[in-house]
Amino acid sequence: MMDMDARHPSSDPSPWMPFESRRRARDEKRDAVLRTAVQLFLEQGYHRATLNEVAERLNITKPALYNYFRGKDEILFECWALGQERAEDCIAEIDAGGGSGLSKLRKLIEGYALVMASDFGASLVRFNARDLAEANQKIARAGKRRIGQAFRNYVSEGVMDGSIKPCDVKLTAFAIVGSLNWIGHWFKPDGALSAEAIASKFSAQLTDGLAKRQAARKATKKKA
Amino acid sequence: MMDMDARHPSSDPSPWMPFESRRRARDEKRDAVLRTAVQLFLEQGYHRATLNEVAERLNITKPALYNYFRGKDEILFECWALGQERAEDCIAEIDAGGGSGLSKLRKLIEGYALVMASDFGASLVRFNARDLAEANQKIARAGKRRIGQAFRNYVSEGVMDGSIKPCDVKLTAFAIVGSLNWIGHWFKPDGALSAEAIASKFSAQLTDGLAKRQAARKATKKKA
Repeated sequence: MMDMDARHPSSDPSPWMPFESRRRARDEKRDAVLRTAVQLFLEQGYHRATLNEVAERLNITKPALYNYFRGKDEILFECWALGQERAEDCIAEIDAGGGSGLSKLRKLIEGYALVMASDFGASLVRFNARDLAEANQKIARAGKRRIGQAFRNYVSEGVMDGSIKPCDVKLTAFAIVGSLNWIGHWFKPDGALSAEAIASKFSAQLTDGLAKRQAARKATKKKA
Repeated sequence: MMDMDARHPSSDPSPWMPFESRRRARDEKRDAVLRTAVQLFLEQGYHRATLNEVAERLNITKPALYNYFRGKDEILFECWALGQERAEDCIAEIDAGGGSGLSKLRKLIEGYALVMASDFGASLVRFNARDLAEANQKIARAGKRRIGQAFRNYVSEGVMDGSIKPCDVKLTAFAIVGSLNWIGHWFKPDGALSAEAIASKFSAQLTDGLAKRQAARKATKKKA
């Protein structure tokens, strides 16, 4: 049998290791606070959930929470920021790749559906920005606008490159974002469909009426 | 000029009239409280809004509010109930009429979009059922299920009668309801599009990919 201690992390020669590993441990604890808090906020609503209960679930004291966060609204903001980051990573990846407006839109629908099916992602739509400190409210609202803008951009690109039928770009984007945001309200990890299955079905379904060459493609399929 | 007092309500011989008119006046005041409260709740969020501010906006005292409602959560419930009633009236009317599943679905999309664009309608999606008294939470959740069920029923009827393409009925309904619920978050009465215009565009757009004979109809149009 392999000796599991063979990696001997404590024998690493770097003088930074102790600090690094303390920092990592701290990050892990901080993450654990956020994961527990977001679940509680989603279950009970932000206003009903208490930091006492967050601490209890983590088997720590409430004052210990203040080693990681200044208060409840900072925890809320951090949960929101993790969801926002996932959405923006997805947009950045799509922007870096190529493809038609329609294919970018489909990728964003799929990616954003997965974000919405996660706890931190659901933070983006289940909590009220007004519960954040004023500076963070602005950050949250600007983030929300960037996501909406990405949907509008891809729809608009699609109309320009001919992959999407002419349509009211803003309303089309609102309709799609609304369908996806709703996932953050109804999705349950133990439900009949996995997040991935939902993401893929939504990506096909929400663009089914938009795609320009759909009728032609269907006709070709029938002939074959 | 017509004498506007010609109706002389006080000279009505019915002994119930004084009571009736008192009741009407009371109903009107109660309605005014609800209209003011729902606006404030939507503007500031339910938890931040105070009954003091509701009373101030109405130029009455906070204790005077208790002539009409037992407390803040009862006001919230009544706002919710007015939105729910509008949605259920719309469903009842569609159920009473005939038509294909697709045409029923289009009517419901249009009707529910209008509900979402109203203050009381937005109550259905902007507030948290957990803020209601326990008995009212159950009523609100059952009401929400009835609305979701109506969308599923019409989609399912449409698949059965051939007006809607075969699809995952539940996901399709969720996607549509999500788009519409989102209206309750973004709609502004002073925005570029009227509620009616949005309702009609959503009704067409959200069923565009679902309609079974769409491709055939388009082909016919092109020939003509």
